Amino acid sequence: MSNIRHALTVKREDDFAKWYQEVISAADLAEESGVRGCMVIKPWGYGIWERVQRLMDDRIKQAGVQNTYFPIFIPLANFEREAAHVEGFAKEMAVVTHHRLIADGKGGLIPDPEAKLEEPLVVRPTSETIIGDAMSRWVQSWRDLPLLLNQWGNVVRWEMRTRMFLRTSEFLWQEGHTAHATREDALEETHRALEMYRACVEEDLALPVIAGEKPENERFPGADETWSIEAMMQDGKALQAGTSHYLGTNFAKAASIQYQDREGTQQYCHTTSWGTSTRLVGGLVMTHGDDDGLRVPPRVAPHQVIILPILRDKPEDEALLAYCEELRAGLVAHSALGEPVRVLLDKTPGKASAKRWDWVRRGAPVILEVGPRDMENGKVAAIRRDTLWNAETGKLATEFVLRDEFVSGIGALLEDIQGSLFSEASERRDANITRGVTEWDEVVQFYKSNGKYPGWVEVQWSKPTSEALEKVVERLKAEKLTIRNVPRGSDAADGACIFTGEPAVERILVARAY
Amino acid sequence: MSNIRHALTVKREDDFAKWYQEVISAADLAEESGVRGCMVIKPWGYGIWERVQRLMDDRIKQAGVQNTYFPIFIPLANFEREAAHVEGFAKEMAVVTHHRLIADGKGGLIPDPEAKLEEPLVVRPTSETIIGDAMSRWVQSWRDLPLLLNQWGNVVRWEMRTRMFLRTSEFLWQEGHTAHATREDALEETHRALEMYRACVEEDLALPVIAGEKPENERFPGADETWSIEAMMQDGKALQAGTSHYLGTNFAKAASIQYQDREGTQQYCHTTSWGTSTRLVGGLVMTHGDDDGLRVPPRVAPHQVIILPILRDKPEDEALLAYCEELRAGLVAHSALGEPVRVLLDKTPGKASAKRWDWVRRGAPVILEVGPRDMENGKVAAIRRDTLWNAETGKLATEFVLRDEFVSGIGALLEDIQGSLFSEASERRDANITRGVTEWDEVVQFYKSNGKYPGWVEVQWSKPTSEALEKVVERLKAEKLTIRNVPRGSDAADGACIFTGEPAVERILVARAY
Repeated sequence: MSNIRHALTVKREDDFAKWYQEVISAADLAEESGVRGCMVIKPWGYGIWERVQRLMDDRIKQAGVQNTYFPIFIPLANFEREAAHVEGFAKEMAVVTHHRLIADGKGGLIPDPEAKLEEPLVVRPTSETIIGDAMSRWVQSWRDLPLLLNQWGNVVRWEMRTRMFLRTSEFLWQEGHTAHATREDALEETHRALEMYRACVEEDLALPVIAGEKPENERFPGADETWSIEAMMQDGKALQAGTSHYLGTNFAKAASIQYQDREGTQQYCHTTSWGTSTRLVGGLVMTHGDDDGLRVPPRVAPHQVIILPILRDKPEDEALLAYCEELRAGLVAHSALGEPVRVLLDKTPGKASAKRWDWVRRGAPVILEVGPRDMENGKVAAIRRDTLWNAETGKLATEFVLRDEFVSGIGALLEDIQGSLFSEASERRDANITRGVTEWDEVVQFYKSNGKYPGWVEVQWSKPTSEALEKVVERLKAEKLTIRNVPRGSDAADGACIFTGEPAVERILVARAY
Repeated sequence: MSNIRHALTVKREDDFAKWYQEVISAADLAEESGVRGCMVIKPWGYGIWERVQRLMDDRIKQAGVQNTYFPIFIPLANFEREAAHVEGFAKEMAVVTHHRLIADGKGGLIPDPEAKLEEPLVVRPTSETIIGDAMSRWVQSWRDLPLLLNQWGNVVRWEMRTRMFLRTSEFLWQEGHTAHATREDALEETHRALEMYRACVEEDLALPVIAGEKPENERFPGADETWSIEAMMQDGKALQAGTSHYLGTNFAKAASIQYQDREGTQQYCHTTSWGTSTRLVGGLVMTHGDDDGLRVPPRVAPHQVIILPILRDKPEDEALLAYCEELRAGLVAHSALGEPVRVLLDKTPGKASAKRWDWVRRGAPVILEVGPRDMENGKVAAIRRDTLWNAETGKLATEFVLRDEFVSGIGALLEDIQGSLFSEASERRDANITRGVTEWDEVVQFYKSNGKYPGWVEVQWSKPTSEALEKVVERLKAEKLTIRNVPRGSDAADGACIFTGEPAVERILVARAY
């Protein structure tokens, strides 16, 4: 077997941003579409997203939340109703103004001036306002509560600087929207969704996250509380991987979502919303990718095992393909991580060694190469993507295993890979959170002197609000820093606020972020 | 049990269109959104669509087609390239012209004149042109073929007159797009997709269809051949339930989708596209609905069995709920139609009898009511939605069955319901296709005298083209008739063309249509 090291031209340590772009392309995840700010998600990238969707959707349904579908177009009036929301959202959005095209007389097309909409429509950036309209119709009495809805779909937020999966004008996501009788119920739902996200992202995508509350300045427009899960990328930056908002009665008042309580009194509902998006695929790349491409955790891998027969365009190929087909059938009859094993027998034309590297770059968890000699010996040559290289020899850590042993061990193998990727990421994350910093200058110094990928710093603060908070945000911004969240369950504060010197009330994570 | 007949206010025979609207609402499928031409798909309606999606997607993947995602926005230039396509599509579409809103100074919002797009973007009505762009990048050699892609998403076609599920400005669908080396391969794919649609719609939705080729005037804009599956609604009208197009090299030439063949020569690909949409849910209603609401075939029912405990707000409720939970657990451990049985134990507040009628209107295949007496006797009261009434007594055909017998028989019961709904629809369809009509006047007379819901007529024609075809279409249009398709595998023509008197070359189905 050939041992060409580094399937990519850029290493993470040299240029993380460039490396990211190269993995997106080399792993066949996505590409630029030619339409401003929009990407094309290719089959392997979309396959990963479909797996995330399926696993998240199972969790959503498990919680009794029902899927629905609301219009992609939102009338301007909906945005005008909720003041904070309009401030935060009614800016960079795609606006539909015409409903017909006509020939321009020069061989081209233009919007028909005769077909101008009376009221322009906005392509949804998020659906609180339009779902709020429906909630106001659907909720009448306490018996209708809680109302637990979710939607899978596309949204558009016009972005000036885009980066594939992380920030695109159009992206795919799910948005949960729920209405409750009381503040307590709504907060419980906010936390249930947050915990669901933590579990899915950690258990399925193998991305360790820290769940916590966002500071006031990072709240969703119109929310009373915003909670997030934050993941650390290999360059030490934070990626917000999911958010869950307690909206108080703000949207309920704007859309008139009211119910009659058991005593017959009209009350406003307390609502929540929560979302995760295709951004998670970007997080997957920046957490599990290495200098040979992507490594996909088995739970979200469209194919977990790739079988590559070494074909020679000779009559013997037939027997080899039969051997591989038997291998495939044996594997799919097994379960791993609670589901039947997903196997691809890749019979596409091309050299097995070239195809091996295609699958290394794409990050299939296990790649099997099977040649005539392996068949004779009843063996397979197995490559485990997460531990690709033998550190001692510097060669590919290929293992020649008896076919039957490989088949019966597939469940344990995939579980081990899933666990290893999570452990590796968790250890790196934990090693890169610095605690005990008590002076602002120390923080500034830390980010100046700690190399390219400095990680996160935990500090204590007095939770300033309004103008005082603005000043803090400015100081952070000058260092390109942000507050990620107040970790759930973190130790009580016991020192002084790093910004104001006042007694601290909580601990916050400070980091550079995507 | 109460025996209120007719859960709806309108009967099919009195006003089919009004009945349809009432079922959509009474079965909690969808409602108007307040946004022009767009509907809100409610949980039960969306649940049915999710089931259709899952089953169709399994068939799509089974065929080796890969899911992808392409931008919702399409530049005007893409539409300008393919002449026939621009003629057919570049008309009633939503056009995005601005990317920002600003305050209008009167408390409202307007598109920001400073944020006008240089080139307007169209919200996709279908994706041939943008997927063609990607195909031209992805296909280089014969080794890259066939390229088999599919996309699930939303599309927008601005509609003046809308009807829920059947014709809405925004709708959900899947669109398959494939590229092949030869005409033969592309035609084979066109027919594979058509046959996949027939199988899914007949086996999963229990809608009998007739697969065949559309006449030239009904072709997709830019296609060389368009094939369809046509279903008969209970008012005798036809519903086009899916289409599969052979696009020749038309789109390949417009988008430059070329490959190098084995001899090293550049060749244009032959492409196909095929689609089905949320329209299928409308077809389900108009085929299986009755005067009590919807009847959902078990395969596409989000819940196949509803358990309604008759609760009395007393301590005894606990034992009853435990009995029902045991019943639920017993049922979900069984399989029906190849999948675990889907059961809902409905514990929401409200009277069991009111809730029973909610589920009758929604069309859950089996509804179980369980009261304290049933529990004592180890029984359940079972209602089969497809045969709701006892014809002799005029009462609900409720059966009291031993719980264990019911549980062990659930697979057979659901299979029987699935089969019965299909048989009922097939028999009605077959009884309403009139054959052997040889004169145009007879056709006209048939539709004049054959009541409100006359069905379809099979006639023979000489397959006129261009102007001669236009004249035929005009004659049909005057009677509000359309040609549905030339049924696949129909008998050879043996008479004269009903329109021209010339020797006929094939048989066509004529019908009123949605």
